[in-house]
Amino acid sequence: MQTKFAKRVTTASRSFTRTILDLTAQSSIISFAGGLPDAALFPRENIEKHAKELFKTEDNRLFQYSNASGVEALKVEIAKKYVNTPSTQIMLTNGSQQGLDLVCKTFLDEKDCIIVEDPSYLAALGLFHMYNATIKAVPLSSKGVDTDVLEVLFRDYSPKFFYTIPIFQNPTGYSYTLENRHEVVRLAQKYNVILLEDSPYEALRYDGVQTKAFADLLPELTIALGTFSKTLAPDFRIGWMKAPQEIISALTLSKESTDLQNSKFFQHICAKMMQSGELQEHTKTLIAYYRPKRDAMVNALHELFGDSIEFVVPEGGMFIWVNFKKCADSMKLFDVAIKKGVAFVPGSVFFADKRVTSYGRLNYTNSSLEQIETGVKKLYEAYNKL
Amino acid sequence: MQTKFAKRVTTASRSFTRTILDLTAQSSIISFAGGLPDAALFPRENIEKHAKELFKTEDNRLFQYSNASGVEALKVEIAKKYVNTPSTQIMLTNGSQQGLDLVCKTFLDEKDCIIVEDPSYLAALGLFHMYNATIKAVPLSSKGVDTDVLEVLFRDYSPKFFYTIPIFQNPTGYSYTLENRHEVVRLAQKYNVILLEDSPYEALRYDGVQTKAFADLLPELTIALGTFSKTLAPDFRIGWMKAPQEIISALTLSKESTDLQNSKFFQHICAKMMQSGELQEHTKTLIAYYRPKRDAMVNALHELFGDSIEFVVPEGGMFIWVNFKKCADSMKLFDVAIKKGVAFVPGSVFFADKRVTSYGRLNYTNSSLEQIETGVKKLYEAYNKL
Repeated sequence: MQTKFAKRVTTASRSFTRTILDLTAQSSIISFAGGLPDAALFPRENIEKHAKELFKTEDNRLFQYSNASGVEALKVEIAKKYVNTPSTQIMLTNGSQQGLDLVCKTFLDEKDCIIVEDPSYLAALGLFHMYNATIKAVPLSSKGVDTDVLEVLFRDYSPKFFYTIPIFQNPTGYSYTLENRHEVVRLAQKYNVILLEDSPYEALRYDGVQTKAFADLLPELTIALGTFSKTLAPDFRIGWMKAPQEIISALTLSKESTDLQNSKFFQHICAKMMQSGELQEHTKTLIAYYRPKRDAMVNALHELFGDSIEFVVPEGGMFIWVNFKKCADSMKLFDVAIKKGVAFVPGSVFFADKRVTSYGRLNYTNSSLEQIETGVKKLYEAYNKL
Repeated sequence: MQTKFAKRVTTASRSFTRTILDLTAQSSIISFAGGLPDAALFPRENIEKHAKELFKTEDNRLFQYSNASGVEALKVEIAKKYVNTPSTQIMLTNGSQQGLDLVCKTFLDEKDCIIVEDPSYLAALGLFHMYNATIKAVPLSSKGVDTDVLEVLFRDYSPKFFYTIPIFQNPTGYSYTLENRHEVVRLAQKYNVILLEDSPYEALRYDGVQTKAFADLLPELTIALGTFSKTLAPDFRIGWMKAPQEIISALTLSKESTDLQNSKFFQHICAKMMQSGELQEHTKTLIAYYRPKRDAMVNALHELFGDSIEFVVPEGGMFIWVNFKKCADSMKLFDVAIKKGVAFVPGSVFFADKRVTSYGRLNYTNSSLEQIETGVKKLYEAYNKL
């Protein structure tokens, strides 16, 4: 018997990154492929302490059904990250990936147009395809997006939103300049386009100074997504959205029909860690461990590859976007690299049109300094073999 | 500026039940409205014990990203509930509501037809509307669905699935007879229609003997949904799906793009409680507390209302579906009852066409024996006042 799936499913294919992750999880391969935080750094003692405290202080309502938008104490703490924002403009999600899903569900009819950066976050591209969206891509450079192209797309396609990762972008590590942001804001206002601002990495800054978020520059047209997966722990499954009241109300309705609510248990722990300043301290620790990892990868790439590759040193986040310019198709480099014992993500998958590219994404947060050194050497051997 | 939501959102309205829940949460009103378990009965000591154990025995990967389908040990335990089922045919969800959402996402194109029982679970009806499904309803009685009507609907509309709650249905408390099940199975086979079998209450049986599930009678065409929200705790947010391999694979892909994965922490605790038999013991405790509550409500209704109402005594679950036959529109009874200090859910909201009805849904699990007695008295006063 033929199973009659929806059209959206028959056009979806299994995530290539998932395949790489499965491959590297089971082997001795050094993996620069994933986007995982370093598990050794999870603040286990703090989590355990607050978990025990919760069992002592909270009554059984801790485990009962509750509301769809999340624990008030945590929403209050998150609201402080933004200018003049009441907690009613915050809602919590099952990781920020669910935020993306709820925005699609709440805004997209079939064939509606949305704009993405080229390249962009892989799992967002996959999700947008699931909603049968018309996806248009705007070129991204190390300074931000090409605003000339963006204006044409805003004007010609009246998109429902522009999906933007303006700080330490995935996969590139690039950040928009303040000038670029202001120009994007001007265009969003002119054409009445929502900015869907995804900032999972913004707390992981190793150099430079934080610039203003779209959520503060243009609050009335921005839906901001954030997450504790990179600063606390992915298994907490806590992301958030910040948006104007009318939009948060609609998103909350979508959340109710999607999965009623999230677990409150880790939301309480997260709130305690913010109230006490423990999360802020922990973020400093993460930066102290991740900065040398980034430096180690940057230095190893410079020393071994010299002028044969190009990349921009990221000021934060988890990724380096390398142009392996002597290898027009990085998928071929990937095949050789895997045999040498090192993995990365070939750039093709991050482009809306899956074009052949010489670029590749390298993650440095989930490898030790030694693995970074060895892995880059293996990658260099693979590059020379081509 | 006009916010351009998707069509699905503009047709959705805020759940009436949520409104009642918000109303009753803040007041002295006795509520028979919700579908909540009794929070006093949550197995808190077990949960705390296993949580402490997890912190001792598991390494930091406990809090790292993992796979979309859930903790293997728990899937193995759940698979044992079904005949000849490997754990690969099980996947875990963020409560069974997310299972419903993922099935819709994976199967429904715009306007696709689905069949529901009339009346049916409110939040499922809301979700199906969000997917712009064409919803057809089949009459439900205390013996099961009207299979003559079901056959016509299967034949004329080629539905993607039939959403069925065959045991202790919500809102009615009715269960299909085995004969009715066999007839539904025959029709599903004849017309190649998937049975989406939702069984959140099946473990809460106070009388009678369990009959076979569609998942075992017709495994090749059944997607079964289950949950720990009624037996363990809603905040765990653990539901599951059991389906043929091809379907589980497609659902897992949908889960990945929807929210990547769930928290594994409570999945581990749930697995431990099943392996040790603690959950099975706890379910007996629940039954020992819930059966007298059901009896108290049944007796109070009989004693006070006599022949002026009609209902079928449910063999399990959480609800009694009462025909307030002297009040053609139970919404009017609701308005008076609220003023008297007792809430229930008027039946209208559970029907696909929201028809005016004399029925209402009463929950007995989340009230004390005393509240049940007092609440039914207040309800009787309201009924007499009309």
